[in-house]
Amino acid sequence: MRCLWLERGRLELRTDRPAPSPGPGEALVEVRLAGVCATDLELLRGYAGFTGVPGHELVGTVVSADGATGWVGARVVAEINAACGACEACRAGLGRHCPTRTVLGIVGRDGAFADLVTIPVANLHRVPDAVPDEAAVFCEPLAAALEVAEQVHLGPADRVLLVGAGRLGQLVARVLALAGCDVLAVARHARHRELLERVGVATCGPDDVEARGRFGVVVEASGSPAGFELARRAVRPRGTIVLKSTYAAGRLELDASSIVVDEVTIVGSRCGPFAPALRLLERGAVDVAPLVEARYPIERGADAFEHAARPAALKVLLTMGRAS
Amino acid sequence: MRCLWLERGRLELRTDRPAPSPGPGEALVEVRLAGVCATDLELLRGYAGFTGVPGHELVGTVVSADGATGWVGARVVAEINAACGACEACRAGLGRHCPTRTVLGIVGRDGAFADLVTIPVANLHRVPDAVPDEAAVFCEPLAAALEVAEQVHLGPADRVLLVGAGRLGQLVARVLALAGCDVLAVARHARHRELLERVGVATCGPDDVEARGRFGVVVEASGSPAGFELARRAVRPRGTIVLKSTYAAGRLELDASSIVVDEVTIVGSRCGPFAPALRLLERGAVDVAPLVEARYPIERGADAFEHAARPAALKVLLTMGRAS
Repeated sequence: MRCLWLERGRLELRTDRPAPSPGPGEALVEVRLAGVCATDLELLRGYAGFTGVPGHELVGTVVSADGATGWVGARVVAEINAACGACEACRAGLGRHCPTRTVLGIVGRDGAFADLVTIPVANLHRVPDAVPDEAAVFCEPLAAALEVAEQVHLGPADRVLLVGAGRLGQLVARVLALAGCDVLAVARHARHRELLERVGVATCGPDDVEARGRFGVVVEASGSPAGFELARRAVRPRGTIVLKSTYAAGRLELDASSIVVDEVTIVGSRCGPFAPALRLLERGAVDVAPLVEARYPIERGADAFEHAARPAALKVLLTMGRAS
Repeated sequence: MRCLWLERGRLELRTDRPAPSPGPGEALVEVRLAGVCATDLELLRGYAGFTGVPGHELVGTVVSADGATGWVGARVVAEINAACGACEACRAGLGRHCPTRTVLGIVGRDGAFADLVTIPVANLHRVPDAVPDEAAVFCEPLAAALEVAEQVHLGPADRVLLVGAGRLGQLVARVLALAGCDVLAVARHARHRELLERVGVATCGPDDVEARGRFGVVVEASGSPAGFELARRAVRPRGTIVLKSTYAAGRLELDASSIVVDEVTIVGSRCGPFAPALRLLERGAVDVAPLVEARYPIERGADAFEHAARPAALKVLLTMGRAS
């Protein structure tokens, strides 16, 4: 089969990989469409020390499913954390935090930039007919955006600041807007601003935040230390900063005393729930179509990565030749 | 009147200060007893750039009260943040975060290491007869310990780790124990361990934490970067670290990506509610008597500070000659 192979900071097309063999409880999924995410770009720079097939945003068709033949032929999206199902975290319903988990295309498990991928049946979700492939492929990052609402109470009367208006920020903005919040987004690029204003989210530049007062909730989706500093200055006492991006630099400097004095809460936020993401896509409450920037066939994977790394780039999709 | 005067890193007894004049809405309070806190030791090292009379843990008797004569003669404790009462924070019930607040003996307002102190009437709380002065003087730090429960849901089935078992940690441990939590405290000193075990809190050394598994809530009350690192290692994914001490060093290094991946919440925590602190003292639910380490007359204020700074020191009290 064809796949993109990442090894030692290089990405290359391979056309001679054998089809993967699903293990117990796993499905074999034919990938229809996959999305390139910032994490994929980080993997290329060495994040998580990953060697193998990257790709964790996908929509596909089930070819086979161990012990669950009802799935065969289903169009699916898939949660990316493959949990043991038996440990304390799993028993507490926190499989996304299973300490021995593998993560699709990120940790110990080949991902979706390939014709075929194996995924635990327990991770699959059927895609409603009303949701086209190009929307379904956003399910994983939309679930990550919804995780903000899962962790932090977003009151409809809240004033919320969003720092970062790229791929993930655009989805977070849509979630915040649906909650009825008064949302201001810090956006550097005209295209990002325009997309946000279309969904009723006001925007400003980073230097204009101070004049807008303080915010009860600030979502930091830029992944930059400067974005975190901005979030820290903009949050009001007793307010909450949500860290929605992993930080390439890894470490941040924190003025701990000021966090204590102002009683600020900082919430790390990662993967989220798929079911509400699919519901919102099915209801048409979140329109992701304008966020698709480009489509590349898998053979042009390197070009797709290069495109996704451009400043202000939105979603770049990899097509396997079978997307609807 | 007599007072301890802090200026440029030096503390000295003054006996010739004029009695302070209460402003509008303020009471004049005769101090009966005052406690030395870690923040006072920090002030001496330059924290907050404070010049004046330190001291923010007190019990006293009201001498006069502008517009509220019913308070005269009452035995009182006092909240330490003097708020404007009119700004957005104050109107939202967050006077402790009023941006123009003064803070008793810490920011812009002389404190309680004196015969007399002025305090807004709005900050006073009557001390129930059943609460002796030596218990009432703990009201401010006990309120700060209760702030943990105000900010974070402490379920009775939660496993909670407490890092730091000194003055503040001992009070936090008592609050956690009352919530029914399974509490383990990291304590370096035999005296601290003994006091904790008396209230049913298990203890261990810092090197033994790892073997105890992970904790849903970790309260960091050591104020040291090493304590924070320990807290970070001990908290489980989706768990909460409460920062309960200001950090002398000010800044902490934070592995932001791991906070995101593990979805950890960090909560800064400062001053707390006085009313429940007084209720618990009145009910005898929190016994603070064993935490009193020494008493010094105000004339020996420098000795009291020196004593409070000793390793493992618990509460050092300053007496004005009128304590019950």
